[in-house]
Amino acid sequence: MAEGPVAAYQGEPGSYSEMALLEFFRGQVRPVPRATFDEVFEQVSRGDAGYGIVPIENSLAGSIHRNYDLLLRHELTILGEHHLKVEHYLIGHPGVDLGQIRKVYSHPQALAQCEQYLARLGALEIIPTYDTAGSVKYIKEHGIREGAAVASRRAAEIYQMKILAEGIEDQLQNYTRFLILARENPRPQEGNKTSIVFSVENRPGSLFRALSAFALRDIDLYKIESRPLQGKPWEYFFYLDFQGNPAEPNCRNALSHLGEMTTFLKVLGSYPRATL
Amino acid sequence: MAEGPVAAYQGEPGSYSEMALLEFFRGQVRPVPRATFDEVFEQVSRGDAGYGIVPIENSLAGSIHRNYDLLLRHELTILGEHHLKVEHYLIGHPGVDLGQIRKVYSHPQALAQCEQYLARLGALEIIPTYDTAGSVKYIKEHGIREGAAVASRRAAEIYQMKILAEGIEDQLQNYTRFLILARENPRPQEGNKTSIVFSVENRPGSLFRALSAFALRDIDLYKIESRPLQGKPWEYFFYLDFQGNPAEPNCRNALSHLGEMTTFLKVLGSYPRATL
Repeated sequence: MAEGPVAAYQGEPGSYSEMALLEFFRGQVRPVPRATFDEVFEQVSRGDAGYGIVPIENSLAGSIHRNYDLLLRHELTILGEHHLKVEHYLIGHPGVDLGQIRKVYSHPQALAQCEQYLARLGALEIIPTYDTAGSVKYIKEHGIREGAAVASRRAAEIYQMKILAEGIEDQLQNYTRFLILARENPRPQEGNKTSIVFSVENRPGSLFRALSAFALRDIDLYKIESRPLQGKPWEYFFYLDFQGNPAEPNCRNALSHLGEMTTFLKVLGSYPRATL
Repeated sequence: MAEGPVAAYQGEPGSYSEMALLEFFRGQVRPVPRATFDEVFEQVSRGDAGYGIVPIENSLAGSIHRNYDLLLRHELTILGEHHLKVEHYLIGHPGVDLGQIRKVYSHPQALAQCEQYLARLGALEIIPTYDTAGSVKYIKEHGIREGAAVASRRAAEIYQMKILAEGIEDQLQNYTRFLILARENPRPQEGNKTSIVFSVENRPGSLFRALSAFALRDIDLYKIESRPLQGKPWEYFFYLDFQGNPAEPNCRNALSHLGEMTTFLKVLGSYPRATL
């Protein structure tokens, strides 16, 4: 068992979330698997876990909205971010060769990311499942020897299964950005990136005026996204990531200026921007 | 068999996509199920289907990015949009009562939307699957009498199964917006809503300047979203929906002005804005 504080992630051991967690903390945490993202947030909120990690965005598939909603609902802060390079492996039973595979199991997103590779393998049955590492576990526990799973190298190791092919993703530039969450961020003043959520009145020019708070101060934006307000279809929150942190006068002024123009504003956290 | 042109949708008969298709065309099409969104786009592109329908956004879960990517990749046009009110039903075998249910099957998103209701039912095994209507088909074909599925009323009818509970979603304001696609839009000049995708240089103020093309002309924005560029992690496309259509001078000027500031710009279609 690893030493260090408890850190919660969603999925099975061997999942990409667990890999990101171990990379970010360089192994100095005890990873605890949870069934859902909600449970990750709840465990950190209750103090049962010192940290939580959740995926927020994939460079191919876009944002994971559920986790934005949970950031709004819980009073947690973003402590850091981590980019994980997603590398898919085709994993089967020991003693089985690639030519014997007739079925491929994985999460729909992982299957979609290996679409061209799988098509080249010929007439395979593609079986979407709920989890990548969970698919390796499934074909192992059910003794499905003509089946393979698309998952991480670590999943193959954990379940002692065989790697049939590696680097099978069609698009090699495939990154997932994870957020590391805690109840309090001890070092927000070191952050060079800040994440906020806000809403504005629903009329022409509202968003443009809101963005002037940053543009007029030469503050770079890293991401913007409109998100439907729950219970008010087609009214929107905006999620925004920008350069700097509120300890700097320029950013503090921008947030103060923005606050004059918004109907809701919440700072989700300031943290060091991760490099790829 | 219904009369009219062929219209492709993703999923099984009884899926929410098929319902949206039938509502939009008031039944005057022949719905053809396809396994994937890609196949829907391909069938319309080849002319094998006159129309296609795909979900683009859910008021709780956010955008369906895969379909934005496919809009970029294919030369189709948006002919219209349709808001479907998502109403979930708990569906089991005829002769089975709610108290006998031990397992609930459905798509993770549908399960999440009925979380509170399912929790109130007590100790149930929750089994995530790939499709809502497909889960009804599954418990029927496998004779799983202690199992129920979360799906549409229509799915219960098609598979001749019993509705155990209705209106089980936690949040009643649950809409999915669908886009109707065709190779050409015969009536773009009637559209009061336009969807575009563009990219700008990655420097402070780029997005702000781009949005000035609309703000300075009092053109209302309905949606904005940054989307990672495939192969260039953390560089972005922007998806924008705005009021009006390029046949109007004000909008034509805005698009021309926007074009001066973008490195890429594509009009995805102009179409009548649907009301809820």
